[in-house]
Amino acid sequence: MREPQTHERMNGETRLHLCVGDPIAQVKSPEGLTREFAAREVNAVCVPAHVPADSLVAFMAAAKHTRNVDGLVITVPHKFSAFAHCEVTSERARIVGAINVMRRERDCRWFGDMTDGIALLVALRERGFDPKASTALLAGAGGAGSAVALALVEAGISELAICDVDAARRDALIGRLKALGTRVGVHAGAPDPSGYAVVVNATPAGMAPGDPLPLDADRIDQRAFVADLISRPVMTPLLLAARTRGASIVTGEDMFAPQKKILVDFLLGAPV
Amino acid sequence: MREPQTHERMNGETRLHLCVGDPIAQVKSPEGLTREFAAREVNAVCVPAHVPADSLVAFMAAAKHTRNVDGLVITVPHKFSAFAHCEVTSERARIVGAINVMRRERDCRWFGDMTDGIALLVALRERGFDPKASTALLAGAGGAGSAVALALVEAGISELAICDVDAARRDALIGRLKALGTRVGVHAGAPDPSGYAVVVNATPAGMAPGDPLPLDADRIDQRAFVADLISRPVMTPLLLAARTRGASIVTGEDMFAPQKKILVDFLLGAPV
Repeated sequence: MREPQTHERMNGETRLHLCVGDPIAQVKSPEGLTREFAAREVNAVCVPAHVPADSLVAFMAAAKHTRNVDGLVITVPHKFSAFAHCEVTSERARIVGAINVMRRERDCRWFGDMTDGIALLVALRERGFDPKASTALLAGAGGAGSAVALALVEAGISELAICDVDAARRDALIGRLKALGTRVGVHAGAPDPSGYAVVVNATPAGMAPGDPLPLDADRIDQRAFVADLISRPVMTPLLLAARTRGASIVTGEDMFAPQKKILVDFLLGAPV
Repeated sequence: MREPQTHERMNGETRLHLCVGDPIAQVKSPEGLTREFAAREVNAVCVPAHVPADSLVAFMAAAKHTRNVDGLVITVPHKFSAFAHCEVTSERARIVGAINVMRRERDCRWFGDMTDGIALLVALRERGFDPKASTALLAGAGGAGSAVALALVEAGISELAICDVDAARRDALIGRLKALGTRVGVHAGAPDPSGYAVVVNATPAGMAPGDPLPLDADRIDQRAFVADLISRPVMTPLLLAARTRGASIVTGEDMFAPQKKILVDFLLGAPV
Protein backbone atom coordinates (compact mmCIF):
# COMPACT_ATOMS: atom_id res chain seq x y z
CA MET A 1 0.00 0.00 0.00
CA ARG A 2 1.34 3.42 -0.97
CA GLU A 3 1.82 5.61 2.08
CA PRO A 4 0.18 9.04 1.75
CA GLN A 5 2.41 12.10 1.29
CA THR A 6 2.57 14.77 4.01
CA HIS A 7 0.50 17.26 2.12
CA GLU A 8 -2.13 14.64 1.42
CA ARG A 9 -2.36 13.93 5.11
CA MET A 10 -1.78 17.43 6.50
CA ASN A 11 -4.88 19.58 6.31
CA GLY A 12 -7.14 21.76 8.42
CA GLU A 13 -8.50 18.71 10.23
CA THR A 14 -5.09 17.35 11.27
CA ARG A 15 -4.78 16.78 15.04
CA LEU A 16 -1.56 17.93 16.69
CA HIS A 17 0.76 16.31 19.18
CA LEU A 18 3.69 18.51 20.19
CA CYS A 19 7.06 17.16 21.30
CA VAL A 20 8.23 19.74 23.85
CA GLY A 21 11.90 20.11 24.84
CA ASP A 22 15.04 22.22 24.92
CA PRO A 23 17.17 21.39 22.96
CA ILE A 24 14.85 19.86 20.36
CA ALA A 25 16.85 18.98 17.23
CA GLN A 26 17.81 15.53 18.56
CA VAL A 27 14.28 14.27 19.40
CA LYS A 28 12.95 11.19 17.63
CA SER A 29 9.23 11.54 18.36
CA PRO A 30 8.25 13.84 15.46
CA GLU A 31 9.43 11.32 12.86
CA GLY A 32 8.58 8.16 14.81
CA LEU A 33 5.14 9.15 16.05
CA THR A 34 4.11 10.79 12.76
CA ARG A 35 5.04 7.51 11.03
CA GLU A 36 3.07 5.58 13.66
CA PHE A 37 -0.04 7.79 13.23
CA ALA A 38 0.20 7.32 9.46
CA ALA A 39 0.48 3.53 9.81
CA ARG A 40 -2.71 3.61 11.90
CA GLU A 41 -4.43 5.86 9.33
CA VAL A 42 -5.01 8.61 11.91
CA ASN A 43 -4.96 12.21 10.65
CA ALA A 44 -2.47 13.43 13.26
CA VAL A 45 1.16 14.53 13.32
CA CYS A 46 3.81 14.98 16.00
CA VAL A 47 5.74 18.22 15.54
CA PRO A 48 8.70 19.50 17.56
CA ALA A 49 8.25 22.52 19.86
CA HIS A 50 11.46 24.13 21.08
CA VAL A 51 10.40 25.57 24.44
CA PRO A 52 12.93 26.93 26.97
CA ALA A 53 12.25 26.21 30.65
CA ASP A 54 11.27 29.79 31.43
CA SER A 55 8.54 29.68 28.76
CA LEU A 56 6.91 26.40 29.81
CA VAL A 57 4.06 27.91 31.83
CA ALA A 58 3.02 30.23 28.99
CA PHE A 59 3.42 27.40 26.48
CA MET A 60 1.21 25.02 28.47
CA ALA A 61 -1.54 27.63 28.83
CA ALA A 62 -1.59 28.22 25.08
CA ALA A 63 -1.33 24.54 24.10
CA LYS A 64 -4.28 23.67 26.32
CA HIS A 65 -6.38 26.38 24.68
CA THR A 66 -5.46 25.30 21.15
CA ARG A 67 -8.38 23.02 20.38
CA ASN A 68 -6.70 20.70 17.90
CA VAL A 69 -3.75 19.97 20.22
CA ASP A 70 -4.58 16.52 21.58
CA GLY A 71 -1.29 15.53 23.17
CA LEU A 72 2.16 16.56 24.34
CA VAL A 73 5.30 14.43 24.42
CA ILE A 74 7.54 15.88 27.12
CA THR A 75 11.30 15.66 27.04
CA VAL A 76 14.36 17.21 28.74
CA PRO A 77 14.29 19.49 30.74
CA HIS A 78 10.51 19.54 31.29
CA LYS A 79 9.65 16.02 32.60
CA PHE A 80 9.37 17.12 36.24
CA SER A 81 7.87 20.57 35.71
CA ALA A 82 5.23 19.31 33.25
CA PHE A 83 3.85 17.01 35.96
CA ALA A 84 2.24 20.03 37.65
CA HIS A 85 0.40 20.88 34.41
CA CYS A 86 -1.61 17.63 34.45
CA GLU A 87 -5.02 17.51 36.11
CA VAL A 88 -4.84 13.69 36.30
CA THR A 89 -1.81 11.38 36.31
CA SER A 90 -1.09 7.66 36.27
CA GLU A 91 0.08 6.03 39.49
CA ARG A 92 3.55 5.46 38.08
CA ALA A 93 3.79 9.13 37.10
CA ARG A 94 2.87 10.13 40.68
CA ILE A 95 5.48 7.80 42.17
CA VAL A 96 8.16 9.16 39.86
CA GLY A 97 6.87 12.74 40.11
CA ALA A 98 7.48 13.25 36.41
CA ILE A 99 5.77 12.62 33.06
CA ASN A 100 6.90 12.11 29.49
CA VAL A 101 3.48 12.31 27.83
CA MET A 102 0.10 13.95 28.42
CA ARG A 103 -3.17 13.85 26.52
CA ARG A 104 -6.43 15.80 26.49
CA GLU A 105 -9.24 13.65 27.90
CA ARG A 106 -12.82 13.82 26.63
CA ASP A 107 -13.70 15.96 29.66
CA CYS A 108 -10.83 18.31 28.64
CA ARG A 109 -8.68 17.48 31.66
CA TRP A 110 -5.03 16.67 30.86
CA PHE A 111 -3.88 13.18 31.82
CA GLY A 112 -0.14 12.57 32.28
CA ASP A 113 1.83 9.32 32.21
CA MET A 114 5.48 8.29 32.44
CA THR A 115 6.36 5.52 30.00
CA ASP A 116 10.18 5.69 29.90
CA GLY A 117 10.51 2.77 32.32
CA ILE A 118 8.16 0.35 30.60
CA ALA A 119 9.62 1.21 27.18
CA LEU A 120 13.09 0.26 28.38
CA LEU A 121 11.75 -2.90 29.98
CA VAL A 122 10.11 -3.98 26.69
CA ALA A 123 13.39 -3.37 24.83
CA LEU A 124 15.34 -5.38 27.44
CA ARG A 125 12.87 -8.30 27.34
CA GLU A 126 12.95 -8.32 23.52
CA ARG A 127 16.71 -8.97 23.81
CA GLY A 128 16.22 -11.84 26.23
CA PHE A 129 16.55 -10.11 29.60
CA ASP A 130 14.50 -11.71 32.35
CA PRO A 131 14.03 -9.29 35.26
CA LYS A 132 12.95 -11.99 37.73
CA ALA A 133 15.52 -12.18 40.52
CA SER A 134 18.04 -10.12 38.55
CA THR A 135 20.23 -7.43 40.07
CA ALA A 136 20.34 -3.95 38.59
CA LEU A 137 22.58 -0.89 38.71
CA LEU A 138 21.08 2.46 37.68
CA ALA A 139 23.14 5.60 37.10
CA GLY A 140 20.97 8.73 37.23
CA ALA A 141 17.93 9.48 39.43
CA GLY A 142 16.29 12.12 37.19
CA GLY A 143 12.90 11.76 35.49
CA ALA A 144 13.78 8.94 33.10
CA GLY A 145 16.02 7.23 35.68
CA SER A 146 13.24 7.27 38.27
CA ALA A 147 10.85 5.72 35.77
CA VAL A 148 13.37 3.00 34.92
CA ALA A 149 13.91 2.27 38.65
CA LEU A 150 10.17 1.90 39.20
CA ALA A 151 9.68 -0.34 36.15
CA LEU A 152 12.55 -2.62 37.20
CA VAL A 153 11.25 -2.86 40.76
CA GLU A 154 7.72 -3.64 39.54
CA ALA A 155 9.08 -6.25 37.09
CA GLY A 156 10.46 -8.32 39.96
CA ILE A 157 14.21 -7.72 40.16
CA SER A 158 15.85 -8.74 43.43
CA GLU A 159 18.16 -5.78 44.02
CA LEU A 160 18.53 -2.24 42.69
CA ALA A 161 21.57 -0.05 43.33
CA ILE A 162 21.26 3.62 42.39
CA CYS A 163 24.08 6.12 41.92
CA ASP A 164 23.79 9.83 41.21
CA VAL A 165 26.18 12.72 41.76
CA ASP A 166 23.25 14.44 43.48
CA ALA A 167 23.03 12.36 46.70
CA ALA A 168 19.84 14.07 47.85
CA ARG A 169 18.05 13.25 44.59
CA ARG A 170 19.35 9.68 44.73
CA ASP A 171 18.15 9.21 48.33
CA ALA A 172 14.78 10.79 47.58
CA LEU A 173 14.23 8.21 44.81
CA ILE A 174 15.31 5.38 47.09
CA GLY A 175 12.88 6.65 49.71
CA ARG A 176 9.97 6.77 47.24
CA LEU A 177 10.70 3.22 46.07
CA LYS A 178 10.95 1.88 49.62
CA ALA A 179 7.68 3.59 50.48
CA LEU A 180 5.98 1.28 47.96
CA GLY A 181 6.55 -1.55 50.42
CA THR A 182 8.57 -3.47 47.82
CA ARG A 183 10.61 -6.54 48.78
CA VAL A 184 13.33 -5.45 46.33
CA GLY A 185 16.56 -4.41 48.03
CA VAL A 186 16.90 -0.78 46.93
CA HIS A 187 20.04 1.06 48.06
CA ALA A 188 22.63 3.62 47.08
CA GLY A 189 25.46 2.12 45.07
CA ALA A 190 28.87 2.92 43.64
CA PRO A 191 29.26 3.33 39.85
CA ASP A 192 30.76 -0.17 39.72
CA PRO A 193 28.81 -2.55 37.46
CA SER A 194 30.59 -5.78 38.40
CA GLY A 195 28.15 -8.52 39.27
CA TYR A 196 25.01 -6.70 38.04
CA ALA A 197 22.76 -8.44 35.50
CA VAL A 198 21.46 -5.15 34.10
CA VAL A 199 23.18 -1.77 34.02
CA VAL A 200 21.33 1.37 32.92
CA ASN A 201 22.70 4.83 32.20
CA ALA A 202 20.07 7.50 32.72
CA THR A 203 22.55 10.37 33.11
CA PRO A 204 23.48 12.73 30.25
CA ALA A 205 27.13 11.53 30.38
CA GLY A 206 27.92 10.37 26.83
CA MET A 207 25.93 12.98 24.91
CA ALA A 208 28.88 15.31 24.37
CA PRO A 209 32.32 14.28 23.08
CA GLY A 210 34.78 13.98 25.95
CA ASP A 211 32.12 13.31 28.59
CA PRO A 212 33.36 11.04 31.41
CA LEU A 213 31.81 7.55 31.50
CA PRO A 214 28.80 7.38 33.85
CA LEU A 215 30.28 4.26 35.49
CA ASP A 216 33.34 2.04 35.43
CA ALA A 217 32.88 0.30 32.07
CA ASP A 218 35.93 -1.96 32.60
CA ARG A 219 33.99 -3.83 35.25
CA ILE A 220 30.89 -4.65 33.20
CA ASP A 221 29.94 -8.31 33.44
CA GLN A 222 30.17 -10.20 30.14
CA ARG A 223 26.66 -11.64 30.63
CA ALA A 224 25.17 -8.27 31.56
CA PHE A 225 22.56 -6.23 29.67
CA VAL A 226 23.74 -2.64 29.36
CA ALA A 227 21.24 0.07 28.36
CA ASP A 228 21.82 3.75 27.66
CA LEU A 229 18.88 6.16 27.45
CA ILE A 230 20.85 8.69 25.39
CA SER A 231 19.37 9.01 21.90
CA ARG A 232 22.27 10.79 20.20
CA PRO A 233 24.91 9.45 19.69
CA VAL A 234 23.25 6.04 19.36
CA MET A 235 26.49 4.25 20.29
CA THR A 236 27.68 6.03 23.41
CA PRO A 237 31.17 5.40 24.85
CA LEU A 238 29.50 3.26 27.55
CA LEU A 239 27.75 1.08 24.98
CA LEU A 240 30.92 0.77 22.88
CA ALA A 241 32.83 -0.40 25.97
CA ALA A 242 30.03 -2.81 26.95
CA ARG A 243 29.96 -4.33 23.49
CA THR A 244 33.74 -4.78 23.53
CA ARG A 245 33.37 -6.67 26.80
CA GLY A 246 30.78 -9.00 25.22
CA ALA A 247 27.72 -7.65 27.03
CA SER A 248 24.27 -7.31 25.39
CA ILE A 249 23.42 -3.69 24.68
CA VAL A 250 20.23 -1.64 24.39
CA THR A 251 20.57 1.76 22.71
CA GLY A 252 18.27 4.76 23.00
CA GLU A 253 17.08 3.87 19.51
CA ASP A 254 16.29 0.29 20.58
CA MET A 255 14.22 1.71 23.42
CA PHE A 256 12.43 4.16 21.12
CA ALA A 257 11.00 1.35 18.94
CA PRO A 258 8.60 0.12 21.68
CA GLN A 259 8.33 3.65 23.13
CA LYS A 260 6.74 5.12 20.01
CA LYS A 261 4.02 2.45 19.99
CA ILE A 262 3.41 2.93 23.73
CA LEU A 263 3.18 6.72 23.28
CA VAL A 264 0.76 6.53 20.35
CA ASP A 265 -1.40 3.98 22.21
CA PHE A 266 -1.54 6.44 25.10
CA LEU A 267 -2.11 9.54 22.95
CA LEU A 268 -4.96 7.84 21.08
CA GLY A 269 -6.54 6.89 24.38
CA ALA A 270 -5.83 3.18 24.73
CA PRO A 271 -5.02 1.91 28.23
CA VAL A 272 -1.22 1.48 28.55
CA MET B 1 11.81 12.67 -8.40
CA ARG B 2 10.13 10.82 -5.53
CA GLU B 3 8.71 13.22 -2.98
CA PRO B 4 9.80 12.46 0.60
CA GLN B 5 7.23 11.02 3.02
CA THR B 6 6.10 13.04 6.04
CA HIS B 7 8.07 11.02 8.52
CA GLU B 8 11.19 11.33 6.39
CA ARG B 9 10.78 15.07 6.42
CA MET B 10 9.35 15.59 9.92
CA ASN B 11 12.03 15.46 12.59
CA GLY B 12 13.43 17.40 15.52
CA GLU B 13 14.87 20.03 13.18
CA THR B 14 11.61 20.75 11.36
CA ARG B 15 10.62 24.44 11.43
CA LEU B 16 7.00 25.25 12.18
CA HIS B 17 4.52 27.62 10.58
CA LEU B 18 1.12 27.63 12.29
CA CYS B 19 -2.13 28.44 10.51
CA VAL B 20 -4.20 30.14 13.21
CA GLY B 21 -7.99 30.42 13.00
CA ASP B 22 -11.40 29.52 14.39
CA PRO B 23 -12.92 27.45 12.83
CA ILE B 24 -9.89 25.66 11.36
CA ALA B 25 -11.05 22.51 9.55
CA GLN B 26 -11.66 24.36 6.27
CA VAL B 27 -8.22 26.02 5.92
CA LYS B 28 -6.07 25.21 2.90
CA SER B 29 -2.68 26.44 4.14
CA PRO B 30 -1.55 23.31 6.04
CA GLU B 31 -1.73 21.17 2.90
CA GLY B 32 -0.79 23.87 0.39
CA LEU B 33 2.13 25.41 2.26
CA THR B 34 3.53 22.07 3.45
CA ARG B 35 3.51 20.96 -0.20
CA GLU B 36 5.21 24.21 -1.19
CA PHE B 37 7.92 23.85 1.50
CA ALA B 38 8.54 20.28 0.32
CA ALA B 39 8.83 21.38 -3.32
CA ARG B 40 11.46 23.91 -2.22
CA GLU B 41 13.27 21.23 -0.17
CA VAL B 42 12.85 23.22 3.05
CA ASN B 43 12.46 21.22 6.30
CA ALA B 44 9.32 23.06 7.41
CA VAL B 45 5.62 22.29 7.73
CA CYS B 46 2.46 24.33 8.12
CA VAL B 47 0.13 22.88 10.76
CA PRO B 48 -3.35 24.05 11.76
CA ALA B 49 -3.86 25.71 15.17
CA HIS B 50 -7.49 25.99 16.28
CA VAL B 51 -7.38 29.11 18.49
CA PRO B 52 -10.57 30.83 19.73
CA ALA B 53 -10.53 34.64 19.83
CA ASP B 54 -10.33 34.78 23.63
CA SER B 55 -7.13 32.68 23.59
CA LEU B 56 -5.24 34.67 20.95
CA VAL B 57 -3.15 36.77 23.36
CA ALA B 58 -1.94 33.70 25.27
CA PHE B 59 -1.36 31.82 22.03
CA MET B 60 0.76 34.62 20.55
CA ALA B 61 2.92 34.87 23.68
CA ALA B 62 3.63 31.13 23.58
CA ALA B 63 4.17 30.94 19.82
CA LYS B 64 6.71 33.76 19.97
CA HIS B 65 8.63 31.93 22.72
CA THR B 66 8.64 28.61 20.88
CA ARG B 67 11.97 28.86 19.13
CA ASN B 68 11.25 26.69 16.11
CA VAL B 69 8.06 28.56 15.22
CA ASP B 70 9.15 30.77 12.31
CA GLY B 71 5.83 31.96 10.98
CA LEU B 72 2.09 32.29 11.47
CA VAL B 73 -0.60 32.32 8.80
CA ILE B 74 -3.55 34.23 10.21
CA THR B 75 -7.13 33.59 9.22
CA VAL B 76 -10.68 34.36 10.39
CA PRO B 77 -11.39 35.81 12.96
CA HIS B 78 -7.87 36.97 13.88
CA LYS B 79 -6.73 39.12 10.92
CA PHE B 80 -7.36 42.44 12.67
CA SER B 81 -6.38 41.44 16.21
CA ALA B 82 -3.13 39.77 15.09
CA PHE B 83 -1.98 43.11 13.66
CA ALA B 84 -1.26 44.35 17.19
CA HIS B 85 1.02 41.36 17.80
CA CYS B 86 3.49 42.42 15.09
CA GLU B 87 6.46 44.61 15.97
CA VAL B 88 6.90 45.58 12.30
CA THR B 89 4.36 45.59 9.45
CA SER B 90 4.30 46.24 5.72
CA GLU B 91 2.80 49.50 4.49
CA ARG B 92 -0.18 47.67 2.98
CA ALA B 93 -0.84 45.92 6.30
CA ARG B 94 -0.83 49.31 8.07
CA ILE B 95 -3.25 50.81 5.55
CA VAL B 96 -5.61 47.86 5.90
CA GLY B 97 -5.02 47.54 9.66
CA ALA B 98 -4.95 43.74 9.37
CA ILE B 99 -2.51 40.95 8.51
CA ASN B 100 -2.79 37.43 7.14
CA VAL B 101 0.82 36.35 7.75
CA MET B 102 3.69 37.11 10.12
CA ARG B 103 7.25 35.86 10.36
CA ARG B 104 10.07 35.95 12.88
CA GLU B 105 12.84 38.22 11.65
CA ARG B 106 16.55 37.57 12.32
CA ASP B 107 16.41 40.16 15.09
CA CYS B 108 13.45 38.19 16.58
CA ARG B 109 10.91 40.93 15.89
CA TRP B 110 7.70 39.73 14.23
CA PHE B 111 6.95 41.22 10.81
CA GLY B 112 3.37 41.18 9.52
CA ASP B 113 2.02 41.47 5.99
CA MET B 114 -1.38 41.34 4.29
CA THR B 115 -1.26 39.44 1.02
CA ASP B 116 -4.94 38.67 0.37
CA GLY B 117 -5.26 41.57 -2.09
CA ILE B 118 -2.24 40.82 -4.23
CA ALA B 119 -3.09 37.10 -4.29
CA LEU B 120 -6.53 37.90 -5.74
CA LEU B 121 -5.01 40.33 -8.22
CA VAL B 122 -2.57 37.67 -9.48
CA ALA B 123 -5.46 35.20 -9.90
CA LEU B 124 -7.53 37.83 -11.79
CA ARG B 125 -4.63 38.77 -14.10
CA GLU B 126 -3.95 35.09 -14.83
CA ARG B 127 -7.51 34.88 -16.16
CA GLY B 128 -7.05 37.91 -18.40
CA PHE B 129 -8.34 40.73 -16.21
CA ASP B 130 -6.63 44.07 -16.84
CA PRO B 131 -7.19 46.42 -13.90
CA LYS B 132 -6.19 49.57 -15.82
CA ALA B 133 -9.19 51.86 -16.06
CA SER B 134 -11.57 49.11 -14.94
CA THR B 135 -14.45 49.64 -12.55
CA ALA B 136 -14.85 47.43 -9.47
CA LEU B 137 -17.56 46.54 -6.97
CA LEU B 138 -16.49 45.09 -3.64
CA ALA B 139 -18.88 43.50 -1.11
CA GLY B 140 -17.33 43.33 2.36
CA ALA B 141 -14.99 45.78 4.09
CA GLY B 142 -13.39 43.34 6.58
CA GLY B 143 -9.73 42.32 6.63
CA ALA B 144 -9.60 40.49 3.31
CA GLY B 145 -12.00 42.96 1.66
CA SER B 146 -9.85 45.90 2.75
CA ALA B 147 -6.76 44.21 1.31
CA VAL B 148 -8.58 43.57 -2.00
CA ALA B 149 -9.70 47.21 -2.14
CA LEU B 150 -6.15 48.44 -1.63
CA ALA B 151 -4.67 46.06 -4.22
CA LEU B 152 -7.28 47.10 -6.82
CA VAL B 153 -6.70 50.80 -6.16
CA GLU B 154 -2.92 50.37 -6.39
CA ALA B 155 -3.27 48.33 -9.61
CA GLY B 156 -4.83 51.32 -11.37
CA ILE B 157 -8.58 50.76 -11.56
CA SER B 158 -10.67 53.86 -12.29
CA GLU B 159 -13.52 53.43 -9.82
CA LEU B 160 -14.22 51.34 -6.72
CA ALA B 161 -17.65 50.99 -5.13
CA ILE B 162 -17.80 49.36 -1.72
CA CYS B 163 -20.84 47.91 0.01
CA ASP B 164 -21.05 46.48 3.52
CA VAL B 165 -23.95 46.01 5.91
CA ASP B 166 -21.76 47.77 8.46
CA ALA B 167 -21.82 51.34 7.08
CA ALA B 168 -19.28 52.61 9.59
CA ARG B 169 -16.79 49.94 8.61
CA ARG B 170 -17.44 50.63 4.91
CA ASP B 171 -16.93 54.38 5.36
CA ALA B 172 -13.79 53.88 7.45
CA LEU B 173 -12.27 51.85 4.61
CA ILE B 174 -13.30 54.47 2.05
CA GLY B 175 -11.69 57.13 4.25
CA ARG B 176 -8.42 55.20 4.52
CA LEU B 177 -8.26 54.69 0.76
CA LYS B 178 -9.00 58.35 0.03
CA ALA B 179 -6.31 59.35 2.53
CA LEU B 180 -3.77 57.69 0.22
CA GLY B 181 -4.31 60.56 -2.21
CA THR B 182 -5.43 58.16 -4.93
CA ARG B 183 -7.07 59.38 -8.13
CA VAL B 184 -9.38 56.36 -8.07
CA GLY B 185 -13.00 57.26 -7.45
CA VAL B 186 -13.74 55.37 -4.22
CA HIS B 187 -17.30 55.54 -2.92
CA ALA B 188 -20.05 53.65 -1.15
CA GLY B 189 -22.12 51.56 -3.52
CA ALA B 190 -25.25 49.46 -3.74
CA PRO B 191 -24.95 45.65 -4.09
CA ASP B 192 -25.78 46.05 -7.79
CA PRO B 193 -23.04 44.67 -10.06
CA SER B 194 -24.40 45.99 -13.37
CA GLY B 195 -21.75 47.80 -15.36
CA TYR B 196 -18.78 46.75 -13.20
CA ALA B 197 -15.79 45.03 -14.83
CA VAL B 198 -14.82 43.21 -11.67
CA VAL B 199 -17.04 42.13 -8.78
CA VAL B 200 -15.57 40.70 -5.57
CA ASN B 201 -17.34 39.05 -2.65
CA ALA B 202 -15.34 39.41 0.56
CA THR B 203 -18.31 38.75 2.86
CA PRO B 204 -19.03 35.35 4.44
CA ALA B 205 -22.36 35.14 2.55
CA GLY B 206 -22.24 31.84 0.66
CA MET B 207 -20.35 29.74 3.21
CA ALA B 208 -23.48 28.25 4.76
CA PRO B 209 -26.38 26.65 2.84
CA GLY B 210 -29.28 29.10 2.52
CA ASP B 211 -27.12 32.24 2.90
CA PRO B 212 -28.51 35.22 0.99
CA LEU B 213 -26.44 36.29 -2.05
CA PRO B 214 -24.00 39.09 -1.17
CA LEU B 215 -25.20 41.09 -4.19
CA ASP B 216 -27.76 41.03 -6.98
CA ALA B 217 -26.36 38.22 -9.14
CA ASP B 218 -29.01 38.72 -11.84
CA ARG B 219 -27.35 41.98 -12.77
CA ILE B 220 -23.81 40.68 -13.28
CA ASP B 221 -22.33 41.85 -16.57
CA GLN B 222 -21.56 39.04 -19.03
CA ARG B 223 -18.05 40.41 -19.60
CA ALA B 224 -17.35 40.80 -15.87
CA PHE B 225 -14.82 38.99 -13.71
CA VAL B 226 -16.50 37.73 -10.55
CA ALA B 227 -14.35 36.59 -7.61
CA ASP B 228 -15.39 35.04 -4.32
CA LEU B 229 -12.93 34.80 -1.42
CA ILE B 230 -14.84 31.94 0.24
CA SER B 231 -12.76 28.77 0.21
CA ARG B 232 -15.52 26.27 1.06
CA PRO B 233 -17.72 25.64 -0.88
CA VAL B 234 -15.48 26.30 -3.87
CA MET B 235 -18.49 27.06 -6.12
CA THR B 236 -20.56 29.51 -4.08
CA PRO B 237 -24.11 30.47 -5.15
CA LEU B 238 -22.68 33.80 -6.38
CA LEU B 239 -20.11 32.05 -8.61
CA LEU B 240 -22.71 29.60 -9.91
CA ALA B 241 -24.96 32.51 -10.87
CA ALA B 242 -22.05 34.43 -12.44
CA ARG B 243 -21.04 31.42 -14.52
CA THR B 244 -24.61 30.97 -15.71
CA ARG B 245 -24.59 34.57 -16.87
CA GLY B 246 -21.40 33.96 -18.86
CA ALA B 247 -19.02 35.91 -16.60
CA SER B 248 -15.42 34.83 -15.86
CA ILE B 249 -15.07 33.50 -12.34
CA VAL B 250 -12.28 33.29 -9.76
CA THR B 251 -12.85 30.90 -6.86
CA GLY B 252 -11.19 30.91 -3.45
CA GLU B 253 -9.20 27.92 -4.67
CA ASP B 254 -8.04 29.85 -7.75
CA MET B 255 -6.86 32.62 -5.45
CA PHE B 256 -5.09 30.16 -3.14
CA ALA B 257 -2.79 28.92 -5.93
CA PRO B 258 -0.82 32.21 -6.12
CA GLN B 259 -1.46 32.88 -2.42
CA LYS B 260 0.46 29.83 -1.24
CA LYS B 261 3.54 30.83 -3.25
CA ILE B 262 3.28 34.42 -1.99
CA LEU B 263 2.96 33.22 1.62
CA VAL B 264 5.91 30.83 1.41
CA ASP B 265 8.05 33.53 -0.27
CA PHE B 266 7.20 35.82 2.64
CA LEU B 267 7.66 33.16 5.35
CA LEU B 268 11.08 32.21 3.97
CA GLY B 269 12.09 35.85 3.98
CA ALA B 270 11.97 36.85 0.31
CA PRO B 271 10.66 40.36 -0.43
CA VAL B 272 7.02 40.12 -1.60
